[in-house]
Amino acid sequence: MTLILALDFGGTKLAAATVNVGSRKWLRYERRLSPANANASTDLEIMRSLIYSLLEDAKPAAIGVSFGGPVDASTGTVRLSHHVAGWENIPLKGLLENEFGIPVGVDNDANVAALGEHRFGAGQGYDSLFYITVSTGVGGGWILNGQPWRGAGGMAGEIGHMVIDPAGPVCLCGKRGCVERLASGPYMAQNAREILENVDAPAASRSQSVPEGKVAQRRGGLRDGEILRGLVGDDLTLLTGQLVAEAAAAGDDLAKEVLHKAAWALGVGIGNIANLMNPQRFVLGGGVTKAGEDFWRVVRQVARETALPEVDFEVVSATLGDDTPLWGAVAIALLANPEFANE
Amino acid sequence: MTLILALDFGGTKLAAATVNVGSRKWLRYERRLSPANANASTDLEIMRSLIYSLLEDAKPAAIGVSFGGPVDASTGTVRLSHHVAGWENIPLKGLLENEFGIPVGVDNDANVAALGEHRFGAGQGYDSLFYITVSTGVGGGWILNGQPWRGAGGMAGEIGHMVIDPAGPVCLCGKRGCVERLASGPYMAQNAREILENVDAPAASRSQSVPEGKVAQRRGGLRDGEILRGLVGDDLTLLTGQLVAEAAAAGDDLAKEVLHKAAWALGVGIGNIANLMNPQRFVLGGGVTKAGEDFWRVVRQVARETALPEVDFEVVSATLGDDTPLWGAVAIALLANPEFANE
Repeated sequence: MTLILALDFGGTKLAAATVNVGSRKWLRYERRLSPANANASTDLEIMRSLIYSLLEDAKPAAIGVSFGGPVDASTGTVRLSHHVAGWENIPLKGLLENEFGIPVGVDNDANVAALGEHRFGAGQGYDSLFYITVSTGVGGGWILNGQPWRGAGGMAGEIGHMVIDPAGPVCLCGKRGCVERLASGPYMAQNAREILENVDAPAASRSQSVPEGKVAQRRGGLRDGEILRGLVGDDLTLLTGQLVAEAAAAGDDLAKEVLHKAAWALGVGIGNIANLMNPQRFVLGGGVTKAGEDFWRVVRQVARETALPEVDFEVVSATLGDDTPLWGAVAIALLANPEFANE
Repeated sequence: MTLILALDFGGTKLAAATVNVGSRKWLRYERRLSPANANASTDLEIMRSLIYSLLEDAKPAAIGVSFGGPVDASTGTVRLSHHVAGWENIPLKGLLENEFGIPVGVDNDANVAALGEHRFGAGQGYDSLFYITVSTGVGGGWILNGQPWRGAGGMAGEIGHMVIDPAGPVCLCGKRGCVERLASGPYMAQNAREILENVDAPAASRSQSVPEGKVAQRRGGLRDGEILRGLVGDDLTLLTGQLVAEAAAAGDDLAKEVLHKAAWALGVGIGNIANLMNPQRFVLGGGVTKAGEDFWRVVRQVARETALPEVDFEVVSATLGDDTPLWGAVAIALLANPEFANE
């Protein structure tokens, strides 16, 4: 049996697992939360202890790493972490190769997830796909010709900051109407909060830019935001994207409006990307994609309307769930060791 | 000397040329306008006569073809022409291979232009680029890893129908605010005409959706549309994209507004694509890109503002000019014959 070691530096958590090549079942699996004052050194120390605890005397044939932040995948150097201090220019691949003497592959979590879904999940058998994670942020990773496409500077996949509505709300990046500004969980919560705080204003003032389409229309019924307010006991600081989705599923019109706008933004982004790159599949993962059938219906409908009729594609759910980074890391490890080129 | 035959089925014109492998100077060159009632048969007959007139007794080593319409490049079959009847499902590669007994490559004009600029023009030495033509339509072609990327169904490159402004004017495709709707020559002319026909309306009503940015602001000066009206002797049916560009260069504020909106749309599209694919270069060709420094300044500024700060790219002018399809056809021919893989 040939062993693979998969590592996930996830920002707030660290995970490691081992698997035999060809198997889809973890041999061993360890997970820890990053401590409150984590830095790169403490993260590396914790990961090292996880690894030695997992491996005991076994020796893996390759290591794959998913890192939650920008990585130069060609050298395996972490550029920085947005969550944990001290990760600037850490040669993670080099450190692990020196310590374990085996091939190591390192990439950012979106590219790793794309590769994981391609190899083991919803992208199996598809040579071209775009993986999109819709969670606290919105990011993506490409598979083209069966291989990761990372871009000239390793920056490809940034659907999150594609401008969808130039008259939309201002994003953290400074632009207006980015996909992330409209579709990420925290921003959905913010959008709902702003509407609730301003609930007596006429509805028309709330969506100046997006034309009143089928998906954004009011359906009448439950009073705006009633259910959503109930879920947080009127404390709007407690709103989350997940609660918006729950309220929408329970029939809350205001929550539906916010959720539909997020789905609309994702759908326009996907349709634009279908026109531009014509991949076979879009694979969507992350917390927001658990928002229910209504969300998926709008995403698919808007994507289909935005793409040219001749452009075929499917929009499907990721299937690897919470283990996406680790299964992606296995795929990266297999790429890193030329012996496994055809595994 | 090894001879290459390059063919261009351009919709309204047909061209053929020969060149020796390694040379950048045409040996012979012929061009004809398509007749008014052209169909696929007459186009093929004219092209055949051009070819035999060019070749005399010489025998080329490969043929490359640029076709102005959708092509299945894997089989070299034309899907249809938007300009000339009867091209549906014509196996152009097969016809030429049967007649001349040598390798033939056929692709649509945007992919061919991308390959031509990559091999002989502004894309030399760049492994990843997106070629954009801005003319009567707006289209594009990809080079990734030094090879054409055509998409799963051969439809990649459709920047023209990327939605940039969901509250913008309605495009022929049925959507609002596509790049082509805002930036193509004929639509620029239409936008100018509509403003002139409605010139007494307050300026604010003319751009409801795009925020008043630096580029769209009025500068005062010449009265709106005066120069533009003069260029067409007040006959607004004579307006063209080129005249809009000329009037803008001469200081006409209304023409500048239309041109800047086109440049803005292209810039947003380029910035979005830079975030998504991170290519090294954007190479822009086509009549609208001759609109002058002001146009280029806005395109580059908006593209830079739209892309994330970490995403590097250049926006440059195509250099092959009117011969782009034929030089691209040479590149396609070299790809079609494995002997020239390293030429």
